[in-house]
Amino acid sequence: MPTRLSNYFLRTLREDPADAEVASHKLLVRAGYIRRQAPGIFAWLPIGLRVKEKIERVIREEMTAAGAHEVHFPALLPREPYEATNRWTEYGDGLFRLQDRKGGDYLLAPTHEEVFTLLVKDLYSSYKDLPLAIYQIQDKYRDEARPRAGLLRGREFTMKDAYSFDYTDAGLDASYQAQRDAYERIFTRLGLEYVIVKADAGAMGGSKSEEFLHPTPVGEDTFVRSAGGYAANVEAFTTIAPEPIPFDGLPEPKVLPSPNTPTIATLVDLANAEYPRPDGRAWTAADTLKNVVLALTHLDGTREVVVVGIPGDREIDDKRVEVAFAPAAVEAATDDDFKNHPGLVKGYIGPWSADGAVLGSESSTGIRYFLDPRVVSGTEWITGANLDEQHVFGLVAGRDFTADGTVEAANVREGDPAPDGSGPVELARGMEIGHVFQLGRKYAEVLGLKVLDENGKLVTVTMGSYGIGVTRILAIIAELNNDDKGLIWPPQVAPFDVEVLAMGKDAAAFDAAETIVGDLETSGFDVLYDDRPKLSPGVKFADAELVGIPKIVIAGRGVAEGVVEVWDRRSGDRATVPIDGVVEALRG
Amino acid sequence: MPTRLSNYFLRTLREDPADAEVASHKLLVRAGYIRRQAPGIFAWLPIGLRVKEKIERVIREEMTAAGAHEVHFPALLPREPYEATNRWTEYGDGLFRLQDRKGGDYLLAPTHEEVFTLLVKDLYSSYKDLPLAIYQIQDKYRDEARPRAGLLRGREFTMKDAYSFDYTDAGLDASYQAQRDAYERIFTRLGLEYVIVKADAGAMGGSKSEEFLHPTPVGEDTFVRSAGGYAANVEAFTTIAPEPIPFDGLPEPKVLPSPNTPTIATLVDLANAEYPRPDGRAWTAADTLKNVVLALTHLDGTREVVVVGIPGDREIDDKRVEVAFAPAAVEAATDDDFKNHPGLVKGYIGPWSADGAVLGSESSTGIRYFLDPRVVSGTEWITGANLDEQHVFGLVAGRDFTADGTVEAANVREGDPAPDGSGPVELARGMEIGHVFQLGRKYAEVLGLKVLDENGKLVTVTMGSYGIGVTRILAIIAELNNDDKGLIWPPQVAPFDVEVLAMGKDAAAFDAAETIVGDLETSGFDVLYDDRPKLSPGVKFADAELVGIPKIVIAGRGVAEGVVEVWDRRSGDRATVPIDGVVEALRG
Repeated sequence: MPTRLSNYFLRTLREDPADAEVASHKLLVRAGYIRRQAPGIFAWLPIGLRVKEKIERVIREEMTAAGAHEVHFPALLPREPYEATNRWTEYGDGLFRLQDRKGGDYLLAPTHEEVFTLLVKDLYSSYKDLPLAIYQIQDKYRDEARPRAGLLRGREFTMKDAYSFDYTDAGLDASYQAQRDAYERIFTRLGLEYVIVKADAGAMGGSKSEEFLHPTPVGEDTFVRSAGGYAANVEAFTTIAPEPIPFDGLPEPKVLPSPNTPTIATLVDLANAEYPRPDGRAWTAADTLKNVVLALTHLDGTREVVVVGIPGDREIDDKRVEVAFAPAAVEAATDDDFKNHPGLVKGYIGPWSADGAVLGSESSTGIRYFLDPRVVSGTEWITGANLDEQHVFGLVAGRDFTADGTVEAANVREGDPAPDGSGPVELARGMEIGHVFQLGRKYAEVLGLKVLDENGKLVTVTMGSYGIGVTRILAIIAELNNDDKGLIWPPQVAPFDVEVLAMGKDAAAFDAAETIVGDLETSGFDVLYDDRPKLSPGVKFADAELVGIPKIVIAGRGVAEGVVEVWDRRSGDRATVPIDGVVEALRG
Repeated sequence: MPTRLSNYFLRTLREDPADAEVASHKLLVRAGYIRRQAPGIFAWLPIGLRVKEKIERVIREEMTAAGAHEVHFPALLPREPYEATNRWTEYGDGLFRLQDRKGGDYLLAPTHEEVFTLLVKDLYSSYKDLPLAIYQIQDKYRDEARPRAGLLRGREFTMKDAYSFDYTDAGLDASYQAQRDAYERIFTRLGLEYVIVKADAGAMGGSKSEEFLHPTPVGEDTFVRSAGGYAANVEAFTTIAPEPIPFDGLPEPKVLPSPNTPTIATLVDLANAEYPRPDGRAWTAADTLKNVVLALTHLDGTREVVVVGIPGDREIDDKRVEVAFAPAAVEAATDDDFKNHPGLVKGYIGPWSADGAVLGSESSTGIRYFLDPRVVSGTEWITGANLDEQHVFGLVAGRDFTADGTVEAANVREGDPAPDGSGPVELARGMEIGHVFQLGRKYAEVLGLKVLDENGKLVTVTMGSYGIGVTRILAIIAELNNDDKGLIWPPQVAPFDVEVLAMGKDAAAFDAAETIVGDLETSGFDVLYDDRPKLSPGVKFADAELVGIPKIVIAGRGVAEGVVEVWDRRSGDRATVPIDGVVEALRG
């Protein structure tokens, strides 16, 4: 049965929704695929459901091919399992929490590691039961601070989440690879170009993690890649630390006046003007050590002020510093923080003063001090002297100051060496389309999932977690496949294979359209038929362009001569074909 | 591809779950269909999902046949639309409420009338767009006070909810009929016998409502039916009020001592012993007027004590009285209520005293008084005299006392006349399997859903609401189809068409089973194949009986002679058939 627009629950809108910033959001709403219910929360209309189901079908087929079994968990879950893994707390404001009528604590699950672990614990007890991969396609909830971009970052979203269970590391590697391979097939089938990048596994508590990114200049994620094949998101990039240098014989540090040098640039100018290097080489920002004051909020709610030292030619990268200090939350220090720590002389902060260490656990302030990996022992720096309008020159790391630890907080730059030695990296942008994690034994350990191994010994299970945002993928496909007229779906996810437009008022055009619709249905095409009477060709064209079915058949004036037009929405090509040649033309 | 038990995510359990009271709950858990996550909240395992999807497929096909379009709303919805219709408050403790990080109020939707209404308001504006029927199959939430009986009354449950939109009453009738017809087809296809009974529409604010009940002695709902075709649930049953009787010339009421008559039975005994009727007919409970004190809690939170007078041979029916006073909540009056109303002499309450009216708006107490429809003007009653150990005889309704209203609060009895004149009713029990409502204009009125009619006039849309609990239906089918060994699925919803068991250790049996599985798959059967090595025939039999696939093929010792057994799980019949005759035997 063809779907007839005369009685289909589909209405296109003329105006972009007021809150829409990105193309997919605007177009999916205007073309009648989704409707907003609350920030980041949408209802699916019939034509939208069709696209969603096509994507889900591809995912289901590849999950089955990978040997995964489908289950379905509720969104509403009790607090206890998430309390056990500490995620009840760690998720912070991002978790929707509620109580039932008896005061029991519940959450709307943002992801399901805990309850999948408990399910397997309930039912399985032997290594013979493993490996196991189970998955669901299910609606998840995260209370995003700034839900935006429509389905790209919603508060409710459909996700395919799979979990693997093994009792050996080699088993986990194989399960991980099977899911990774399935992801490659899924994205290939969906027509989504992808790059697999190393990712930080810390947030999930895992040991290894990769992201599937669709590379696109408008992507919200930055990643790095080398010509030699290295690829990682910026959070996962690791810096090659230089070798330490002997500092024997280096001159003592000198405190020098440096008025009006609130920035690295002004400091470098002053240094070159007032204190030139004996060998004539110019000072650059890379010779300075920039000390950034941050405030950490730990899980127990305590606030700690720390200082991070990085070369002056780098900036703190928000995402990298977040990962570096996770699970604590990081923000810039406030005026209050400075007031509470008078030892920090704003604009002239450094790890050292003439009286000794200023930063670090052993210092007078007791403020923990972290260094960029490039600040190795023996390197010399210009940095704040902890005196107003004074800097210290020739301060030597490892001799004059030390740190409480190293952090990867500085930004990655084009040309930085890839950590695997495969050459300099370039920066690129992408959108996350999938994420695979080796969780290892963290969840199984905490929740007590053990099985008997070949020797009758209880061993803790090792797990993987594998996610694809179904509704996000749909939005990304929409984001990548449109023009100024509307959506242009790739055939494999299009809600219909072909749309037939009956144009004008002439019954002959409608009769021809009916014939063509019948032929197409018989030949296995899914057909959307614009049979609406009394609408101008202009309105029908505009709707067809907006809705984005990839192939369009136009039955209009040509019908008198026995022909219709077949229009390829993507290429714009139009061909005139005989009425009885439409099926063949669309197959060709 | 057959599903092989050797690597299927299915584990049967030996023990009934501790909290399970009913067969469907026990068996669905033990046979590996569902797992409990919290009270009334379950996860679906692979074999359970298969049954659920089969039921959903039947519903989808019949919804499509009825012209309804599928959509999908979120479970998490903002408060405002439900506030507008007052259901945010009316649902009371039954609603899961929560706040987002910004303090915005949200709910987990128990049903979606409001947002469907708003969706149509958003997209439609003309009578030409109507009629419209849209539906979803979606997970809903109700915070039941006593979630029990597994899926029969869960706190999360999957529901098919459809909504119709018309601009005339005749249109609504037609839309309602189309859904009602679809329900008949759905239940017929699912093999569920049903009775359509009149239901109370009050809770949904509608004008007409019917329930589909599956008649079964173990049902939780009571309904009444007459041989003449009347059927209603007890809440919807209406009493035929007798004609009023002239009271001219009736004697004045007499207050008489009645010590030790705390119950109707003791009162009747005393009356017959001490105050016999002049004509010698015995007094019966039907001659007494029982006054029951109730406490209403209104939506605004205020508590009101009211009294209901019913014939002494009837009882207050909890469900009927709840409907009669809805949306107020009803409970028995407490000791505190009596203390607050000293005018009520417990055990001797009546509407009248020698000083005048005691109950009713015009009385000294001001307590509202409601009467059963049978207490018509001119009827004479023995009732409390509002004096300790005294009753009044010959108190005449309409002369000595009046009421503030009539309520259908008394129980319905076998033999009561059906309101449509179709004869006496009998009582029966059933389980609710579907519910259809004519909502009328309530929701459209409150939420402003209007369209332009043929004359260009704005008219309010009239709506219907139609629900089937998918997971509840599944549980009912399980409840009705089992024996002491396990489940026995009807073929149309069975997770697999046939299960093949390879028995023993002989490779020949496994080879024969593989051949049969291949033949069955080729012929279009969905096959579950118990290929587990090293398991005793007893374990495989027991699992097959528990899991409940309706047809079972047993490849065992007979394979040496070229035969297997084909076992009908329901009838218990076993037939010996040649290995290459299994497909034919199962088709027959």
